[in-house]
Order: sequence, then structure tokens, then C-alpha cells
Amino acid sequence: MPRRLPLDAYVDGVRAGDRAIVGRAITLIESQRADDQALGRALIERLIGDTGRAHRIGVTGVPGAGKSTFIEALGTRLCAAGHRVAVLAVDPSSARSGGSILGDKTRMQELAREPRAFVRPSPSLGALGGVARHSREAVLICEAAGYDLVLIETVGVGQSEVMVAHLVDTFLLLMIPGAGDELQGIKRGILELADLVAVNKADGDRVTAAERARRDYGHALHLMQPRSAGWQVPVLTCSAQSGAGIDALWAKIVEHRRHLEASGEWQRSREEQQVFWMWRALEERLLAEFRGHPAVQARLGAIEAAVRSRRLSPDHAAAELLALFSGRG
Amino acid sequence: MPRRLPLDAYVDGVRAGDRAIVGRAITLIESQRADDQALGRALIERLIGDTGRAHRIGVTGVPGAGKSTFIEALGTRLCAAGHRVAVLAVDPSSARSGGSILGDKTRMQELAREPRAFVRPSPSLGALGGVARHSREAVLICEAAGYDLVLIETVGVGQSEVMVAHLVDTFLLLMIPGAGDELQGIKRGILELADLVAVNKADGDRVTAAERARRDYGHALHLMQPRSAGWQVPVLTCSAQSGAGIDALWAKIVEHRRHLEASGEWQRSREEQQVFWMWRALEERLLAEFRGHPAVQARLGAIEAAVRSRRLSPDHAAAELLALFSGRG
Repeated sequence: MPRRLPLDAYVDGVRAGDRAIVGRAITLIESQRADDQALGRALIERLIGDTGRAHRIGVTGVPGAGKSTFIEALGTRLCAAGHRVAVLAVDPSSARSGGSILGDKTRMQELAREPRAFVRPSPSLGALGGVARHSREAVLICEAAGYDLVLIETVGVGQSEVMVAHLVDTFLLLMIPGAGDELQGIKRGILELADLVAVNKADGDRVTAAERARRDYGHALHLMQPRSAGWQVPVLTCSAQSGAGIDALWAKIVEHRRHLEASGEWQRSREEQQVFWMWRALEERLLAEFRGHPAVQARLGAIEAAVRSRRLSPDHAAAELLALFSGRG
Repeated sequence: MPRRLPLDAYVDGVRAGDRAIVGRAITLIESQRADDQALGRALIERLIGDTGRAHRIGVTGVPGAGKSTFIEALGTRLCAAGHRVAVLAVDPSSARSGGSILGDKTRMQELAREPRAFVRPSPSLGALGGVARHSREAVLICEAAGYDLVLIETVGVGQSEVMVAHLVDTFLLLMIPGAGDELQGIKRGILELADLVAVNKADGDRVTAAERARRDYGHALHLMQPRSAGWQVPVLTCSAQSGAGIDALWAKIVEHRRHLEASGEWQRSREEQQVFWMWRALEERLLAEFRGHPAVQARLGAIEAAVRSRRLSPDHAAAELLALFSGRG
């Protein structure tokens, strides 16, 4: 099988919902090769008209919250209910460390066997900006392939969630009962991004602890501004293992979508997200051109060191670097 | 009196701690005029060696939390204890609306009369990035003028606090007892930025409510990661009116500084902040050059509209705009 297909083969395969082609299309847009990236961009342009129809749902939580098990349980039910479900994963840690927190080929085997589901086994690689861009384009490919629900799993490391919040319509935060504060410690800002909070693993002898955690988080959230006006973030308990509470949680997710649609925020926020990504892409490219500039590369290290030691002010340093970039230096 | 002084007059006046000159130096660096900005930059370069010695303390809270009264009460005590205290204000709302939430010429009159204090009456103006840059340079000027404590007051509108968090060593969040959730609603991310939380207005018949609020916030914070490792964010009550709890709160602020110094985070975070501001300044200048480019200006509106309506993908739009900027378009 050729490493790369002709553009039309990607377009037709994705539109036909061919899962193998969908997978290869996502691999294409994640590629670091210049020619792959050009083809990937052309592919997105061809598909753009078929995108935007899915409910995009972010799922995050501390490691050990049971995100994969939860998504498998939820996804399987949604497929049975007639939905087509795509699952993507964002895990910048895999970019930095090479080792991934989320990614292993055997995850969500049951859901992956569902003909109505598509599970992207490995998380996006690359710098955070790149991760977010790849994930956004992967969402578009899944929508063009006819998936009406796209779940984006992300590990609760903070910055990736902020990016993912600009990708999704609904953001779900998974917690666990009875874990020590070290484990539960919510990274800065994440609680504020949540549209719904669910305490998972509310089964067996953990039901009481889960109930207590539910009250605690409900209390903490009550002190904070919800992400969307007029929406008080609900806190529920559930068990991906036993299935308890999963249907009620899904009902809340649907309710959140209705709330956004009724207030007009659904459309508004989608448009804002488009413009947000245009500027992020622009800044990414602009800074890449800047960092790649030979004169900048030659001096950057020395200038940063001078700024650290306060021999040079940040503004003066910025002016110097920009002059080098613009060929005025 | 001339609108503008020669560079040496600013340098000598600031170094001598002349409050009138300090005020005019800050006005200079806040000016939008190109020649003022050039002079302002030269001034910062001249003073850079005298900066970095103060404890930089951010004070934020919802409108009505009594920030100004609190800073006046705290600042007056610190001056009496032999400190030299500078008070700055960041209020991006004044930039957007023209009307300011914080700014009125009569604020902190008692503290302003203190010879050992400098109170900047009006908040910084300009875009948020600009506000932050001006505030950072104003801090440097106050340090060069010999103020060993610099308090930066900011209204709790969210984004400005994130910026200010990169300016300060210690971030204090002021709350009030018994207010409705609308009033108490903490903007996204702010609670996570706090190194200390104080429930103000704990006086008269509000003491019990303040105590309850203290427990509530302590509980919410216990579920979150502290901003600096090994520092559990303390929650105290105080009354700027009666003075109760102010000394205990100050002791905690000093304790926080000692904690940062002992762990080496004080020095580390100062160096990181310098590099952070270099990149912010760089991005600001780079994007300004970009937005100012005639070919970009001619097409930006149409391209943004196409992105909103999904006729053009964000990446394609970014590529188009960048080509125009680089003269390739």
C-alpha cells in the first residue's frame, strides 16, 4: 500500500466514511513533511464544506480518572442509540517526552470494533500549537466522514485543555472519589473550563466517597463563573464500570447543547473559534518564520541570557531581535 | 512646565525618588506618541540596573471587595513600619470603555499624603498587552525610585490578572462575605492565580459571614493546585475598616516571600518573567508590523469574514495573510 494516496482518494474515502482512509487522512495532516502538509491542507480545503455538523465534546480529567473506560462506555451506548461516534486524543506529553500518557494501541478495543465508531488510537504529536491544529483538522475530517459526535480526550495537564476548549462545544471534566489532594489537585484554570463535571468510579464501596466528592465540587463550582452565561455547571456521579449515571450524564450534555443553541452561543462561539484558530495559525507561522531566520538564530541564545540576567530589558531585546528579523539589524 | 523633560532629568529625578518626576516618568512610558515611546525606552534602559529589588505584590478582587481601602490601610501601616510603598493600578476596562472601574483622582488620599508612599492615581490605559507592558515598566521605575514594596491593584476581570501574575511575586485575592453569587462569581482562572486569599469587611455584623466565606474558599482552594509548589494557599479574614487581621495578613505575605526565596523559586520565577515579557513584547511588535502592513490591511476584513462563514479555513487564511505580509502574495 502506498504511503500516500492521491488527493481524490482521501476526499472520496473520507466522504464515504471509510475508517481506514479517515485514519490515514489524520496521519497525513499530522505529518511533519512539507509535501504531506501541503496535501493535508488541500484535503482540508476540499472537505471544509462538509464540516461543522458534529457536537464536539471535550473529555478531560486527572490521570486515573478512567477517561478511556468512560469514553468506551459512553461511546458504545451512543452507537447503540444510532449515533456515529469519533474519538480523538490530545496528549502534548507524548510530544515532549516521547512517552504518551494516553496513547496505547489497545485502548477502547470494544468501541473500536463498533462499525459506527472511529477510535484514533494514538494521540496527536508535536508542539502544543501543532497538537491543537492537528486535533482541529482531525475533527473536521471526522465531521466530513459523517460522525455526528466527536469526543476529544485530553489528559489534564492544563495548557492543552485551554486549547481544546477552543475546539469543542461542550467540555466535560472527570474526577474520582476519595483520592488524595495530590491526585485530585486540579490544574490551574481547568475547573473553569468545564461545562459539566462527573465524579467517575461511583461504584461498590466508593459510592459514598463519590457522593461526598460530588457535593465538594458542586460547592467549589458554585463560587465560580460558568463558562457560558445562564448555565450552572452540573456535577454528577457515574460509573463507567457499572454504567450507572452514564445516561443521566449524556442527557445533561444534550441539555447543554440545547442551551447553547437557544441562546445563540452555539453559532457565535463556533464563529469566534474559527477566527481564534486563524490568529493562532498566523502567530504560529509568523513566529516560525521569525525563529527560523538565520540572523535571529545566531543571536537568540545570547540575547535571552542577557534578558535573564537583566543586562538587557525585555523590550530592548525584542526590538533588537525584530530588527534582525526585518533585516534592519 | 514643559510637557517632556530631558532624559537625564527623568533619570536623576527617579533615582532621587522625586514623586512628581516618578509620576511624569510613568506618564511618559504610557504615552502613545512614537517620540515619547523612544524616550521611555531609553529611560528604562538607563534605570534597568537599579530595578528588581522590591517585593512585587498583586492585589485583585471583585468590584466592591474594598481593594482601595484595603491597600490604603495596609500601605499606611507599612510606611509607618519604615517601608517605602508604591501603588499602581491596572484596569483594562478603562482602555475599552473609556470609563474606568478603578480610576478616580481622589482614591487613597490618606496614603497619597504619606511622604514614604507613591500612589499612581489613574490606571494604565491601552490594549491589554500594552497595559501589562506599561505596568511592568512602571514597576521598574518605582523600584529605581527606591520603593521596596510595589502593590499592583487590578480589577477582577480575568485576563488582566493573568498578565499581572507574570509581573508579581505574590498575588493576593480579596473577597467579601455574604454577597450573592453574582457578586462573588470568581472569573475563570483567578482563584488559581492567588497565593493568598483574604475575606475583607470582616467587621460588625459581617464577622460570622466572613468566617463562613473563609471556610468556603479554604475548601475550594484545598481542591486546587497551589501556584507555587509546597505552598498551601492560606485564607484569612480581615477588615480594612477596623484594621483587624491586616497585620496577620502581612505576616503571611512576608512568609510567602520567604518560602519563594528558600525554594529558589523567587529567583527562578523572576528570570522566567523576564523571558516571558521578551516574547510578549516580540509577539506584540511582530503582530503590530503584520497588522500595519498595507497589503494585509487591505484584505484582512474580507478574509476574516470568509473564515467566520467557513468559506475559508483558518490555516488557509493564515497562509494567505502571511504571504501578503512577506510580499509573496
